[in-house]
Amino acid sequence: MRRIGVTGAAGRMGRTVIETAGDREDVAVVFAVDATDEEKVADKPIHEPDDVAALLATHEPDAIVDFSVPEATVAFADACAEAGVALVTGTTGFEDDQLDSLKSASEDVAVLKAANFARGIQALLATVRAAAGALPGYDVELTETHHNKKQDAPSGTAKTLLEALAEEREEDFEEVYGREGIDPREAGEIGVHVRRAGDVRGEHELMFAGNDEVLTLSHRAEDRGVFAAGALDAAVWLADRDPGLYTFGDVIEG
Amino acid sequence: MRRIGVTGAAGRMGRTVIETAGDREDVAVVFAVDATDEEKVADKPIHEPDDVAALLATHEPDAIVDFSVPEATVAFADACAEAGVALVTGTTGFEDDQLDSLKSASEDVAVLKAANFARGIQALLATVRAAAGALPGYDVELTETHHNKKQDAPSGTAKTLLEALAEEREEDFEEVYGREGIDPREAGEIGVHVRRAGDVRGEHELMFAGNDEVLTLSHRAEDRGVFAAGALDAAVWLADRDPGLYTFGDVIEG
Amino acid sequence: MRRIGVTGAAGRMGRTVIETAGDREDVAVVFAVDATDEEKVADKPIHEPDDVAALLATHEPDAIVDFSVPEATVAFADACAEAGVALVTGTTGFEDDQLDSLKSASEDVAVLKAANFARGIQALLATVRAAAGALPGYDVELTETHHNKKQDAPSGTAKTLLEALAEEREEDFEEVYGREGIDPREAGEIGVHVRRAGDVRGEHELMFAGNDEVLTLSHRAEDRGVFAAGALDAAVWLADRDPGLYTFGDVIEG
Amino acid sequence: MRRIGVTGAAGRMGRTVIETAGDREDVAVVFAVDATDEEKVADKPIHEPDDVAALLATHEPDAIVDFSVPEATVAFADACAEAGVALVTGTTGFEDDQLDSLKSASEDVAVLKAANFARGIQALLATVRAAAGALPGYDVELTETHHNKKQDAPSGTAKTLLEALAEEREEDFEEVYGREGIDPREAGEIGVHVRRAGDVRGEHELMFAGNDEVLTLSHRAEDRGVFAAGALDAAVWLADRDPGLYTFGDVIEG
Repeated sequence: MRRIGVTGAAGRMGRTVIETAGDREDVAVVFAVDATDEEKVADKPIHEPDDVAALLATHEPDAIVDFSVPEATVAFADACAEAGVALVTGTTGFEDDQLDSLKSASEDVAVLKAANFARGIQALLATVRAAAGALPGYDVELTETHHNKKQDAPSGTAKTLLEALAEEREEDFEEVYGREGIDPREAGEIGVHVRRAGDVRGEHELMFAGNDEVLTLSHRAEDRGVFAAGALDAAVWLADRDPGLYTFGDVIEG
Repeated sequence: MRRIGVTGAAGRMGRTVIETAGDREDVAVVFAVDATDEEKVADKPIHEPDDVAALLATHEPDAIVDFSVPEATVAFADACAEAGVALVTGTTGFEDDQLDSLKSASEDVAVLKAANFARGIQALLATVRAAAGALPGYDVELTETHHNKKQDAPSGTAKTLLEALAEEREEDFEEVYGREGIDPREAGEIGVHVRRAGDVRGEHELMFAGNDEVLTLSHRAEDRGVFAAGALDAAVWLADRDPGLYTFGDVIEG
Repeated sequence: MRRIGVTGAAGRMGRTVIETAGDREDVAVVFAVDATDEEKVADKPIHEPDDVAALLATHEPDAIVDFSVPEATVAFADACAEAGVALVTGTTGFEDDQLDSLKSASEDVAVLKAANFARGIQALLATVRAAAGALPGYDVELTETHHNKKQDAPSGTAKTLLEALAEEREEDFEEVYGREGIDPREAGEIGVHVRRAGDVRGEHELMFAGNDEVLTLSHRAEDRGVFAAGALDAAVWLADRDPGLYTFGDVIEG
Repeated sequence: MRRIGVTGAAGRMGRTVIETAGDREDVAVVFAVDATDEEKVADKPIHEPDDVAALLATHEPDAIVDFSVPEATVAFADACAEAGVALVTGTTGFEDDQLDSLKSASEDVAVLKAANFARGIQALLATVRAAAGALPGYDVELTETHHNKKQDAPSGTAKTLLEALAEEREEDFEEVYGREGIDPREAGEIGVHVRRAGDVRGEHELMFAGNDEVLTLSHRAEDRGVFAAGALDAAVWLADRDPGLYTFGDVIEG
């Protein structure tokens, strides 16, 4: 049984992590942290972000699972490095210097950063690479859809997909976030379409079009639980690793 | 057998109109006009736009079928009004004063302007109205996809769909043409996503999302022929009408 | 606050009804019934189906919400008729004589039977009727997708959609449940495709194709909660009705 | 300029091959063969199937492009083997002994048999292999859609996709062609859904579902021209090959 601390515990993902952990026998949530005013989330008392160092010392978790905001994640990473505790983070939207901080922490402890903890997203990445190689010169457009409360556009997963595509194609695309007026497509551009509506759990679709044909690759999460389960899998796996920076792909490949 | 003049004859749609007319027995193309350098399109000699008045006088067509650009269409409409010839136009992107010119022409002759000549688009409009009424308060996002040479964004059909939606909902949406950065959805906005890729004939999709469910209504043209056939149907129908401004919906309803 | 009895309480839908009711202030679950061996579901003690008459007498619910199996539903309907309690049932797969029993019960109490309690499904029905009228002669194919444990094929909702289509088209389709070998499409047939995979909450799609175009109408549930919420809405609404047989459409129209 | 004979010339694909060849400078159609009563197709005189041996001797083509029926293809293969002419065939629905005949012919000349000549289908196959490896144990369902005149079900391409999947997963699936009644999913089965409607050019979709997520991979042809172009590419490539049995994948890889 692995001991897990949850940060960002009052957000949509944090709550789901706590609930999902409650149904599993291989993990136990030993403390929960958030900057919220709420006192409890899913029956767990909520501690303040400033208390993290003390909580790490008292509860000795095997890993932290974090879905918060970049500034907070950086502080948690420092505390983890100090305390020798592994860190799994699904936070998105880091600036370059914040990424450097995570990297520094990973010299002392195992750190895993992922935009998406769904196994199917890893599969989608593999198919995107396969398609990009097989269809040189085809136009690509990316469309992602999430619930109407999501703040960042596009999603962290969309960015990961765009990186994989650029890598495979060995070219830099110009990302275009909206076309309006007299606005034809330029060679080398990639349209990125961010749809926000209702309660959509998360969809990502890449379309490759050319030569009178269209190939479409898409992934849809049916439930936020899929991400929470993947983050907990990652935490269990990461607890035994040496210091370093890991990806969710490393977890899948075992 | 109706006699048809084709303007914008060297464009994608103009060519398809000429080819489609060649396979039908109820219409004959009696002249073709375009600003192109090409001398012939589908075996038809190409005349210059300035010659239209003379061509109308010489060939006495029953109707013009026009897929060109707004300035040209306005000039053709004036010539048609003068000569007493009906005008079907599928040109999109008119400014308000250009629309006024079309309206003036329609006092003398029958003018039909449509963003789309597919029967299925009329059906899509009917379903959009039905859904908008049945799902008050649901978030709506529109996504349209066309080939990578299309100039205007969004398509004329997309605009027609947005108008139908606003009419049914009795509210003005703020159209948003791209989300990037920290950019959450606001109440009353509608995302309009313009995808341009490969040779896609034309797709329009409306998504209604809320209350943990998603309703999606979409139309796809398999072939430009569907639009050409509809435009010719409209021309045959329009040849017998009184002066006035008509829609493709009028043709469908007979 | 309406008092609700839940039958079929240990099934997927029954559980979700109990959980959803726990988050609402307008309903309270006063007893739960199922033929399961489990003693509790979501903290509610589970009673045996044979006890229903006694439970109705003791707890005096305003309505029963039932997601069970046809034989059980018929017995519950008889008990409700006897006790003067309204019945909402989402059970599917009734034989004709079982439907007659429900009808008999509806002479004494308000009975509402629905294959689907999502508002979006009512909207889908409205769009199907609109499309069927606007696209006479177009080929129609229905595809529905549900999780891999679902027993009946096709879903009750699919049957409702097929009925609406036949009514609007004023013709009887021959439903075809699988094509294999040399098996071309016949005029007047409708392909019904039943996909079962993973944890899919429920999708229904109708495709209208002809004349080089395709219109697609589809609905997707993101969460079983949407059905549970609709069933509870129906129960609240039904508690005040006169005896009779009602549909979920009646609830939506108010 | 390669000299091409076309067999099955009066079918949908044969016609498209002749038209597509007319627009290209690297191929010329030197004769056309079909069992039809029509005397000409796209301005080419039509010869009888029995004349093939004589036509091969007279016109000395570099390759035959064949979209006909299995019995005819076998006879054409024998004639090609005799005359030393390469054969590209897109005919589908062969029995085992007919496949043996093609194999015999390939000892004397280059023979390429493919269910689909779209580059995107090769890409789809690559993505299916990638997904099957990355998502072990996920349920798979295949859905294919073609125009309402298509005879065979499922398409040859669907069969190729199923083979690739079985190979990658190293297991035999039981293919299920329709679910009706009380018909839950069994482990190890794969639903194959054959939709026939309107003028759909050809769509193939594989859905991988499990663990609260769905990955969908799909390909759509916008125009039959994409297949004709691929078949002509294959003929040009095959003209220089040694005897043997080739696939369209060999052409793509160069």
